[in-house]
Amino acid sequence: MIYSFKNDYSEGVHPRILDVLKQTNLEQHEGYGEDRYCSEAIRLLRHKIQNPSADIHFIPGGTQTNAIVIPSILKPYESVVSTSTGHITTHEAGAIEHAGHKIHCVPGRDGKLSCKSIQSVLSVHNDEHMVKPKLVYISDATETGTLYKKQELETLSRFCRSEGLFLYLDGARIGSALCSQDNDMTLAQLSELVDVFYIGGTKNGAMLGEAVIIMNDSLKENFRFHLKQKGALLAKSRIFGLQFLELFKDDLFFKLAEHANKMASKLSQHIENMGYTFLTPSTTNQIFPIFKQDMIDCLSKKYGFYVWEKLDDQYSAVRLVTSWATREQAVDRFIEDLEAIS
Amino acid sequence: MIYSFKNDYSEGVHPRILDVLKQTNLEQHEGYGEDRYCSEAIRLLRHKIQNPSADIHFIPGGTQTNAIVIPSILKPYESVVSTSTGHITTHEAGAIEHAGHKIHCVPGRDGKLSCKSIQSVLSVHNDEHMVKPKLVYISDATETGTLYKKQELETLSRFCRSEGLFLYLDGARIGSALCSQDNDMTLAQLSELVDVFYIGGTKNGAMLGEAVIIMNDSLKENFRFHLKQKGALLAKSRIFGLQFLELFKDDLFFKLAEHANKMASKLSQHIENMGYTFLTPSTTNQIFPIFKQDMIDCLSKKYGFYVWEKLDDQYSAVRLVTSWATREQAVDRFIEDLEAIS
Amino acid sequence: MIYSFKNDYSEGVHPRILDVLKQTNLEQHEGYGEDRYCSEAIRLLRHKIQNPSADIHFIPGGTQTNAIVIPSILKPYESVVSTSTGHITTHEAGAIEHAGHKIHCVPGRDGKLSCKSIQSVLSVHNDEHMVKPKLVYISDATETGTLYKKQELETLSRFCRSEGLFLYLDGARIGSALCSQDNDMTLAQLSELVDVFYIGGTKNGAMLGEAVIIMNDSLKENFRFHLKQKGALLAKSRIFGLQFLELFKDDLFFKLAEHANKMASKLSQHIENMGYTFLTPSTTNQIFPIFKQDMIDCLSKKYGFYVWEKLDDQYSAVRLVTSWATREQAVDRFIEDLEAIS
Amino acid sequence: MIYSFKNDYSEGVHPRILDVLKQTNLEQHEGYGEDRYCSEAIRLLRHKIQNPSADIHFIPGGTQTNAIVIPSILKPYESVVSTSTGHITTHEAGAIEHAGHKIHCVPGRDGKLSCKSIQSVLSVHNDEHMVKPKLVYISDATETGTLYKKQELETLSRFCRSEGLFLYLDGARIGSALCSQDNDMTLAQLSELVDVFYIGGTKNGAMLGEAVIIMNDSLKENFRFHLKQKGALLAKSRIFGLQFLELFKDDLFFKLAEHANKMASKLSQHIENMGYTFLTPSTTNQIFPIFKQDMIDCLSKKYGFYVWEKLDDQYSAVRLVTSWATREQAVDRFIEDLEAIS
Repeated sequence: MIYSFKNDYSEGVHPRILDVLKQTNLEQHEGYGEDRYCSEAIRLLRHKIQNPSADIHFIPGGTQTNAIVIPSILKPYESVVSTSTGHITTHEAGAIEHAGHKIHCVPGRDGKLSCKSIQSVLSVHNDEHMVKPKLVYISDATETGTLYKKQELETLSRFCRSEGLFLYLDGARIGSALCSQDNDMTLAQLSELVDVFYIGGTKNGAMLGEAVIIMNDSLKENFRFHLKQKGALLAKSRIFGLQFLELFKDDLFFKLAEHANKMASKLSQHIENMGYTFLTPSTTNQIFPIFKQDMIDCLSKKYGFYVWEKLDDQYSAVRLVTSWATREQAVDRFIEDLEAIS
Repeated sequence: MIYSFKNDYSEGVHPRILDVLKQTNLEQHEGYGEDRYCSEAIRLLRHKIQNPSADIHFIPGGTQTNAIVIPSILKPYESVVSTSTGHITTHEAGAIEHAGHKIHCVPGRDGKLSCKSIQSVLSVHNDEHMVKPKLVYISDATETGTLYKKQELETLSRFCRSEGLFLYLDGARIGSALCSQDNDMTLAQLSELVDVFYIGGTKNGAMLGEAVIIMNDSLKENFRFHLKQKGALLAKSRIFGLQFLELFKDDLFFKLAEHANKMASKLSQHIENMGYTFLTPSTTNQIFPIFKQDMIDCLSKKYGFYVWEKLDDQYSAVRLVTSWATREQAVDRFIEDLEAIS
Repeated sequence: MIYSFKNDYSEGVHPRILDVLKQTNLEQHEGYGEDRYCSEAIRLLRHKIQNPSADIHFIPGGTQTNAIVIPSILKPYESVVSTSTGHITTHEAGAIEHAGHKIHCVPGRDGKLSCKSIQSVLSVHNDEHMVKPKLVYISDATETGTLYKKQELETLSRFCRSEGLFLYLDGARIGSALCSQDNDMTLAQLSELVDVFYIGGTKNGAMLGEAVIIMNDSLKENFRFHLKQKGALLAKSRIFGLQFLELFKDDLFFKLAEHANKMASKLSQHIENMGYTFLTPSTTNQIFPIFKQDMIDCLSKKYGFYVWEKLDDQYSAVRLVTSWATREQAVDRFIEDLEAIS
Repeated sequence: MIYSFKNDYSEGVHPRILDVLKQTNLEQHEGYGEDRYCSEAIRLLRHKIQNPSADIHFIPGGTQTNAIVIPSILKPYESVVSTSTGHITTHEAGAIEHAGHKIHCVPGRDGKLSCKSIQSVLSVHNDEHMVKPKLVYISDATETGTLYKKQELETLSRFCRSEGLFLYLDGARIGSALCSQDNDMTLAQLSELVDVFYIGGTKNGAMLGEAVIIMNDSLKENFRFHLKQKGALLAKSRIFGLQFLELFKDDLFFKLAEHANKMASKLSQHIENMGYTFLTPSTTNQIFPIFKQDMIDCLSKKYGFYVWEKLDDQYSAVRLVTSWATREQAVDRFIEDLEAIS
């Protein structure tokens, strides 16, 4: 029996969510986001970010969220700046270009974007023979498990505002970022620094659903038209409201992320203690230890994970992902097995 | 307390689906459609339509399904023919045009499309200064509750094939159509007559999910790229597989539709017996009785429903929708209340 | 030898334009609309419409103009209202839908749009499940040779402004409209009543080129990006500047249109005197007399023209188009030939 | 008086073209590519490439050509590989992404693409979470003045065919490439090695117009629909036919390119003799000498040219472009002036 560290969506949904779906199942509600539970969840999330006028919408998945939010912000000739590891440029089947927008890929540092990189794009785009960079896309946690410290995000935010750029934060793993031992920001503080962001439910205990939060007033108008046109308004939208209510009414969302981080941290500490190095200094729920090929082959017989990057003929970085559902005894067993072959 | 006949997605999900979600919840599975339950559901659906090579995919909602399937079939200069009441042209926020394709709206008869109407479009589109009609869109059941008889669908199918047109059937309410007292087709027979169709889960007991079934080999290639690019591949795709397995393993799907139809039929028979007329001769789960405005006002105090079409200063057609979850006592109460004010 | 009344672009270009191209041919100029002649032509056109701040750009052809202007105005979920004979909906190969926007086709009266028709679209589009009508498209002269009187355009303009709709006038044949005996508007007066319009060069003596004039400040920003992205910025843009300068520096543009109208008028008066009727009451350079099939066959041996609409088994309306280049003796000969067979 | 070496479209059109426009001016012809001169030009071009079944179309400009050809070839999820200096990725305002397709930018060598670079893209794109690379875009001459030798193009062609990729050659400056002293291919040989290419008229003596030549049968179907939908069918299409007939009937096209190359070669030889180096080893009509800033300032007073790339605080590469219209005495004067300040 193989235990999977492949990703944070291998299991179903946190049991409390199943319970609440069952309790409310035969109630009759409006659909397409106009049900009572969506309204309550929006109210609760506004409270969490201390912003009563934020515009909040629920979308089934992350790629769809990016493919709706980004084009809703940009004019046809405007473009996006991202690191070359950004999810929108690597693993969304060209959804952003399909919607008409160029992505400028710039090198990141541990998956994070710097003002200097953005500036390098701005400085060569200065007339109508080229696109016009207008949006900065970042992920927190990043695709390689790192996170933005408060000061880093403040610097980016200030830079974007001074340059007339919108800042959009992909929060597919925002729970893990905010619960990292390295984090020094609250959700409310983070929200103040961006124009739009989303809180990922799918990868932190929900069945499906991402909560888009629009902070900048100029981007709020008629957003539901975009949702409908892109097929993101679900008839039984109550399931979004119910899930986010349950996840946030007593901070279950953060407790789940803490568990995931704790499991990743246990893994990485033991792996480090055994003398292995890592591709990136992750303190979230994705870690990237570097192993020899024969060890990878051996571990693959009992554990599921992806080889993330081949470094040379002998060594590769693998990706181990933990989640709200990761069992500690599986972590312990992995550590034991690794020690046995080290 | 208002009882809603507004639509067939007011309640949650059939309880057996909640049970199966719970039983399998902590199992680890692949995501994005590659889980075991999706594979099993696909196998089961292929068996139901007696076609082992049909290409089957699951998509969260109906608008998204249409917005993926139609553009996947058409070249940029090709267009769609639909009745003027077709869902794609009225209630999808321009999703098809957003994806680049003109819809030719032709008059329907009780919401159904005729070869003659299609021919009228073909005969005036004959050079590259105009679009090229290439796809015929129909719904079964239609938006006004009617359905295609076997011979009608055969005629349409033959016409489309002879004219080099693809035929796509929107099955958001295919369950109700196939369980109507007027129906004379099996699911398998219907499937043979179209190039692509979908089986709507959302409106017949699922939480979300539509099963797209591609019959025509030439339309199967690389369909998953379209799904991913349009944000329709969900990480926890297992929920689609589990739902469709549960709905089809013992024909629960059809039993739910039968209940919905029975409730609608009870309503319409009594309404007809009281002397009222209907906008369309529906035998599915949507009926459109014509009432006076004062009656509508009166009924609105106790029941939820939409006024579908204002016919004159005094009369309007209302839409009453039943579902797998409609309670018979609510139907009885409605009939009594209507009799009381008739 | 067949003489063509098929359209107003059968011949090349007014000889004065060839002369000016020759005189300036070896001068070195900037490209992509930044040459001196474009600047001068813009200045001249601004003077003609008495608006020093209008934004003016040149685009090779009419379909491309519509396909750039309309999407530059609309958000993805917004739509266009047009008569069902509008050029954008009939003869542009779906260019507007290809760019993502639905066109609402409403019946026109002699090819002209009424406020009532627009209102009928507005009144049924009221939530995000549908597109949002935002732009009204008209042609002057219309596709069937009629034109908007000042009061008609004022009424439309007032209506659009009160409803928050943009008004765009396709002026492919604006010269002929403004020089019609029925016209009661100046170019400057017309310009005040619309948000954007274009002056068609191609069909009135130019080799190619349409001058887009943006009156509404909110639609001016970064328009050149749209031009470049859609391939409408030509390297040797001087040819646009030179042509429009030559056409407008001494009202050659209007003299050419007057000639075209005079030729059409001569045709229609004689045809009317012979007892024939017309499909529309045109006073521009396109007329639509109704002839019997055998007469059409006979005339076709000596003249080129399109059969516009088959009215019944015996009669059809044909389209006769005159231009700046139409020779009066050809008109006289047509009249004689028609009299001979009448 | 400043003499411009800014580009190859500063002057108008070769005088023989003006003559032929004048001679044929009052002839009546069909429009939209169906005139006699377009047919004759197509026949002549087919003869020049020794392929009687090539599909040939005329398009006003280069950006529009790329924006029509590339999307006509690709499915929505397919992408393009280009060098990072490719015109489509740098100077077309995002036209290809606007049409929905990602461009993979890989490093080039002197602006040229290698199989290894293409392979590096292929090897990381292997499932539907990513786009599917399907088209290779090259320019000949390249954006930095270099050209593909016969063997280089054969190697690329073979690689593309073996990998199922289409090969498209942007020939905005194909005349200069084929007339370079380094060239070892005929137009016919080149045509055999690609799926589609275009012969650029604008930058080699035409007023406007590029001839798209589709070699691969599978890409020919219904191409005129794409042209119309993107606004590239001009009413007075005769001007394309007339120009290409005149340019190719006695190889005027190649003579003009030879003149441009000869002028560039004279410039580069003298510049090299004076001890300067170049950014790239160009043997076409664009050269990129490296000068000190003070020399650039000095030359700028008498000559127009672009600073192409700042190399360090002191040195920059400038771009000098010659054309069919470049006067040899201007070249001589430039050389003298450069010698004077060297």
